[in-house]
Amino acid sequence: MLPRATPSGLLVDLYQFTMMQAYLEAGMAETACFEFFARKLPPNRAFYVAAGLEQALDYLDDLAFEEAELDWLASTGEFGRDFIDHLAGFRFTGDVHAMPEGTVFFPDEPILRVTAPLPQAQFVETRLINLLHFQTVIAAKAARMVLAADGRLLVDYGLRRAHGEEAGLLAARAAYLAGFTGTATVGASRLFDIPAFGTMAHSFIQAHDDEVMAFRHFARARPQKLVLLIDTYDTIEGARRVARLAPELADQGIEVTGVRLDSGDLVELSKAVRDVLDEAGLENVRVLASGGIDEVKIARLAAEGAPIDGFGVGTSLTTASDAPALDCAYKLQEYAGLARRKRSSGKATWPGRKQVYRWFDENGRMLRDLLTVEEDRQDGTALVEPVMAAGERLAPSPGLEDVRAHAARQVATLPEGLRRLEDADAYPVEVSGPLRDLADEVDRRTL
Amino acid sequence: MLPRATPSGLLVDLYQFTMMQAYLEAGMAETACFEFFARKLPPNRAFYVAAGLEQALDYLDDLAFEEAELDWLASTGEFGRDFIDHLAGFRFTGDVHAMPEGTVFFPDEPILRVTAPLPQAQFVETRLINLLHFQTVIAAKAARMVLAADGRLLVDYGLRRAHGEEAGLLAARAAYLAGFTGTATVGASRLFDIPAFGTMAHSFIQAHDDEVMAFRHFARARPQKLVLLIDTYDTIEGARRVARLAPELADQGIEVTGVRLDSGDLVELSKAVRDVLDEAGLENVRVLASGGIDEVKIARLAAEGAPIDGFGVGTSLTTASDAPALDCAYKLQEYAGLARRKRSSGKATWPGRKQVYRWFDENGRMLRDLLTVEEDRQDGTALVEPVMAAGERLAPSPGLEDVRAHAARQVATLPEGLRRLEDADAYPVEVSGPLRDLADEVDRRTL
Repeated sequence: MLPRATPSGLLVDLYQFTMMQAYLEAGMAETACFEFFARKLPPNRAFYVAAGLEQALDYLDDLAFEEAELDWLASTGEFGRDFIDHLAGFRFTGDVHAMPEGTVFFPDEPILRVTAPLPQAQFVETRLINLLHFQTVIAAKAARMVLAADGRLLVDYGLRRAHGEEAGLLAARAAYLAGFTGTATVGASRLFDIPAFGTMAHSFIQAHDDEVMAFRHFARARPQKLVLLIDTYDTIEGARRVARLAPELADQGIEVTGVRLDSGDLVELSKAVRDVLDEAGLENVRVLASGGIDEVKIARLAAEGAPIDGFGVGTSLTTASDAPALDCAYKLQEYAGLARRKRSSGKATWPGRKQVYRWFDENGRMLRDLLTVEEDRQDGTALVEPVMAAGERLAPSPGLEDVRAHAARQVATLPEGLRRLEDADAYPVEVSGPLRDLADEVDRRTL
Repeated sequence: MLPRATPSGLLVDLYQFTMMQAYLEAGMAETACFEFFARKLPPNRAFYVAAGLEQALDYLDDLAFEEAELDWLASTGEFGRDFIDHLAGFRFTGDVHAMPEGTVFFPDEPILRVTAPLPQAQFVETRLINLLHFQTVIAAKAARMVLAADGRLLVDYGLRRAHGEEAGLLAARAAYLAGFTGTATVGASRLFDIPAFGTMAHSFIQAHDDEVMAFRHFARARPQKLVLLIDTYDTIEGARRVARLAPELADQGIEVTGVRLDSGDLVELSKAVRDVLDEAGLENVRVLASGGIDEVKIARLAAEGAPIDGFGVGTSLTTASDAPALDCAYKLQEYAGLARRKRSSGKATWPGRKQVYRWFDENGRMLRDLLTVEEDRQDGTALVEPVMAAGERLAPSPGLEDVRAHAARQVATLPEGLRRLEDADAYPVEVSGPLRDLADEVDRRTL
């Protein structure tokens, strides 16, 4: 399981090896700067939340090639012996600057910069993007749900539809980072110390000849934090059965803490279920909902007054189903002391080592950002910080609770216009004069 | 790296442990059947391609709990000592039936059935769905691209935007299974023996002071299978530079096999680049395209006569961006000799152990499928086969090349109406009389 089992040096595109070999053969090992940034936001996103830095730094820390990997690379016939020997001693020895995880960011703003000998800085591209992109995508999606849920419980149910193991584990982390209450994924709970939540499946009910017996058996095995699933056959009848069973369970010291609805008209059903529970004196039993939940449904249910205390969210969270990818890139911005940029049609980048400054209004809400060259000191808050020097972390990565608290503070600074789920405002990110001048200079220099 | 590093027993939802404990405490360990199937197809899919069975069987083969995991589970305080001791000796001992990987399938058709003692059959739900769902999603997306590409080269470039490591590796496998030519992901090439492809990045060009020097350096490091990226500054000028450089490289025994375009109007640019190359006598140099490619763009480029010989496909493939999840489930269909079903609103399932029969027309094209109970033998082709008995594979999983060939034959049997990328026909899947009778019987029996 993550993170230590997966620092494979082969988790790259083939061209990373070919380019590294070419750089080494050409004697091009001077210092390069690459930055990772988003190009533009998809339609339903007004902001992104930086995530994945801890895993990215773990990757750089651990990056090395095993003998079996080197033997295999040699066997492909695509690389020279000198190059394979070079890989045997390969370690990442560069510097990294980054926005702290949980920081709200916008297009063109670098959330990570790698400064290292060119062959190293180039090589790490694939996995760095892979790690930063995914968690950022999930954290941004989760942040929207947290805004919509407005304090209600949110639990990640998404491992089964996540894109593989690592996606399930890292999605749990990114969602918790962005304000989720916890996860159903046991491995993620262990790995990242995230609160674990769980109810029961329909199959548990179906395996019994009657629903009440299923509730009894389940209650005995989970006397604490008992949540019963009531929609397998008839939701209202399920709620009545819970109401009738609760005194018997109470006699055994078992408290029903919640019921879960997973199908049907959740507004109507949650109201009816709430009534059944309240009439039985079960005001403390929470009504939880799951099944195709996303931030739009959460907002609609809240607006329609559905008495739902919490949501289990699966597919839409762990696949970020409406925007499963972010248009982002890791681009060379400087080599051998000279700023560089890509000018490809529609994909031009801002050159050089950059910093992002942010200003706030008198209520602490974000006003505007400025993208500028690193030397252009400003009086706003600088968002990009040094985190690794000469291949060593400058400090241990902050704990996930601290990152989560930082993300909550960041989201709290979002202006109202950016908190809307749809038709949100665009946030002003200005490009400084010195940065525009640098771009012009690069264009004049480049053939 | 996959597959042996990841059989963690903790890769489940918490409720799998709770339910297992409840089943054991209640003495409910009789034989259960669960089936995995899709509920309905998303708008842009006319069919799915079964994939992931090899990894699913690996999971069942390897499933066990490490001592450190058991200690951690015990430390949560949510489970009894007897249960933890039971887990220490836990192995999967059940039977599995499945459609072979590469088989085309439709909603309600089970692609996998687990028959095992209830606590086991329930427990494996999360990871089985996680593995089967993802590869199936990717294989179906890839199959659409293969149809659109109509013989052109297709290479997976998607690791960087895949949802983590396992997603990148398994997407490469699923895409190759469905007919892709190869992958850029080195780890996937090694793990699954998939042909590796690679070109060069814009940063390689940018790190040089001029583009031609960059081409020279790269050519020296990749004398075989040389593909040059020509859109960093000006695509047509890039093509002219390749044309002028080719004789010099030929003198060194280096053949340019392709050029890659990654931006701009690909119809216009590919035609202009083709002209430049042809005028220089470089008719054998292939024009490859990448950058936001999906099956709709491939079809459009082909329709508009763009002389593109192959595509690198990233994000849209490895995130299946237009349909990153499939509405699917793993449901209890029988327990202790009695068929079961879920009746939840909009989510009712067909009970019992099922088989799928398929009939073909005189040209070998698919005509219709029949979903029926296992005992109802029909003269069509049965799609579900035994693959594991008493926890042991009945045969080694077929090699990926064989699976790929099977998938190609399957896709070749699709009727024309199902091969369209948009507005495809619906395929007829009938539900048999005996299966309907069984569902009625279950409903009469269930409280």
